[in-house]
Amino acid sequence: MAQPIKFGIVGCADIARKLSRAINLSPNATIVAVGSRSEEKARRFIADNGLPATTRPYGSYESLLDDAEVDAVYLPLPTSLHLRWAVAAAGKGKHILIEKPTALCVADLDQILEACETNGVQFMDGTMWVHHPRTAEMEDFLRNSDRFGQLKMVSSIASVYADSNFLQDNIRVKADLDSLGALGDLGWYCIRAILWASDYNLPKTAVAFPNAIKNEAGLILSCGASLHWEDGTIATFHCSFLAHLTFELAVVGSRGILSLSDFIIPFEENSAPFTFVSDSGFKELVTGWKSLPSKKVVSTELPQEALMITEFSRLVGEIKDLGAKPEKKWPVLSRKTQVVLDAVKESIEKEFKQVEIVG
Amino acid sequence: MAQPIKFGIVGCADIARKLSRAINLSPNATIVAVGSRSEEKARRFIADNGLPATTRPYGSYESLLDDAEVDAVYLPLPTSLHLRWAVAAAGKGKHILIEKPTALCVADLDQILEACETNGVQFMDGTMWVHHPRTAEMEDFLRNSDRFGQLKMVSSIASVYADSNFLQDNIRVKADLDSLGALGDLGWYCIRAILWASDYNLPKTAVAFPNAIKNEAGLILSCGASLHWEDGTIATFHCSFLAHLTFELAVVGSRGILSLSDFIIPFEENSAPFTFVSDSGFKELVTGWKSLPSKKVVSTELPQEALMITEFSRLVGEIKDLGAKPEKKWPVLSRKTQVVLDAVKESIEKEFKQVEIVG
Repeated sequence: MAQPIKFGIVGCADIARKLSRAINLSPNATIVAVGSRSEEKARRFIADNGLPATTRPYGSYESLLDDAEVDAVYLPLPTSLHLRWAVAAAGKGKHILIEKPTALCVADLDQILEACETNGVQFMDGTMWVHHPRTAEMEDFLRNSDRFGQLKMVSSIASVYADSNFLQDNIRVKADLDSLGALGDLGWYCIRAILWASDYNLPKTAVAFPNAIKNEAGLILSCGASLHWEDGTIATFHCSFLAHLTFELAVVGSRGILSLSDFIIPFEENSAPFTFVSDSGFKELVTGWKSLPSKKVVSTELPQEALMITEFSRLVGEIKDLGAKPEKKWPVLSRKTQVVLDAVKESIEKEFKQVEIVG
Repeated sequence: MAQPIKFGIVGCADIARKLSRAINLSPNATIVAVGSRSEEKARRFIADNGLPATTRPYGSYESLLDDAEVDAVYLPLPTSLHLRWAVAAAGKGKHILIEKPTALCVADLDQILEACETNGVQFMDGTMWVHHPRTAEMEDFLRNSDRFGQLKMVSSIASVYADSNFLQDNIRVKADLDSLGALGDLGWYCIRAILWASDYNLPKTAVAFPNAIKNEAGLILSCGASLHWEDGTIATFHCSFLAHLTFELAVVGSRGILSLSDFIIPFEENSAPFTFVSDSGFKELVTGWKSLPSKKVVSTELPQEALMITEFSRLVGEIKDLGAKPEKKWPVLSRKTQVVLDAVKESIEKEFKQVEIVG
């Protein structure tokens, strides 16, 4: 039996608490070190999250990266710090699990990915929902042309209502830390879902909706866009810190539809539903639908974030123990998401001009 | 007990079969005449739809309008014929229930509404879903600021997959008969739903999505738009003859969300569901939702189209028997819908330029 992958956590963000639990739940991963800007904070994080007393606290990110025992780092840092610390981690041979959005722009991400490639380390972003077994089941439906037909339309909404404290203090709304705002934090998921629904075919153009809402610092609190493929397929998304919690995804094909209302964080941890129907139509005199949508509930023993850790650790283990190459799929999907996100941002900045998406 | 309102049906379109049944189901309405371009066709319609043998068949629309016993007409004619026949019917003092889209443009609709006003007749368009008791229940939720908060976002998708016969032959795709295509046929419902969600506040601007799909005759088969209010509220819709049956509506507020997947034609005739939640949020460590959406199923004894007939006939009865004035609400809602539809059409024609909506 291979040794579990040894994680160092770089930064004590809120999300790191959830990921610490996920690492502990994963059969092939363990936490050996926590790094913060202050050793005291790292120590407190270790105690507060019930990590073993042997977990090493570090008072700087550098010193954690110098810990030779650390195989992989989880980077929940503000987006503006990703470039610096991901490149540094790769340079020290650490495999990288990084929070989304992966970078401020695709040029920055490309530097990170180059550092990962040069150093032969695995890269994966922290998009959890793609690791839920529900996602694989939905994929079976979407990729089955007898059930779903051809993709025609995707619609996605992601919002989390932010109270006034959040809007004042959270890093996601500070221009110097996370300048992508709601687009980076929530739009990322919508864009990834749209790409997933389209089997990762990049749309050709993006057009932002005209009324993005920004805070005083110019940071996006609410925005959206339509994305367009050459064959007429269209996707729209809207993301916001100003509306009630909403994680809607509807995928419409020529022969079927699929929808769910909790695609980013499932309503419940151990099961997740989705709704689908194929080849329906109207009853005689249009008094109802010939076949009704079915609801499928997919169970999971481990929550999606632990499945993400497990998959990442499996890939790291194959590199470490079996001399495998890093799995290209994950950086490729991150990069496609970032490319579309960049195009949407450019369209917002250019007063909702249509922007070509170049992969 | 007042006499039931006596309907004449002007035109034997498919939808007229559904409405004939609805008139028969309504306690305060009855069919006394059917007009077609051929008397033979009118006769056949009467026989095929089990109407009483006393129903008078007419071989022209004019002769039906000359029938003094007819109180009200149902006009399921192609949109391009609405102006002529609605104005003619109003001129003969007939109350008007007209299929949507109400007219080719708001200028035409204004002529119809003027004729109705001059002649003191009731006007209502054939948007059925607003008459379902589900709609009133959903309204209670949306208009309750403690449960829903402020409107932030509406998303609607309406599609009906058209086979190649339909795309070749149906009047909805013939430029000389129904030049608004999918926008008039399905987009109408989306726009009405968006207006309904916003308590009928007209948005300030419309921007069409860039890739409307048209047939060889230039008729819209698929299109969409975003609509924008000054306070940052946004709505999007997409309508299509090229995708599987989809009637999605999601309404997102600051404190709650509401969604349904069969808003135009309920899955089943006698009951209709919707889903809602208020003041939810994440559990500790974001492992799930604090409160889950509830599903409410609203029963109805009469189908929504019969409820529409009943309401229309009630208003006509009050005018006829009690000297009441026509109810302004219905022409006002039709006109608002048509105004937004016109703006979307203009934005499509102007290469998705932002178009101001003037009420």
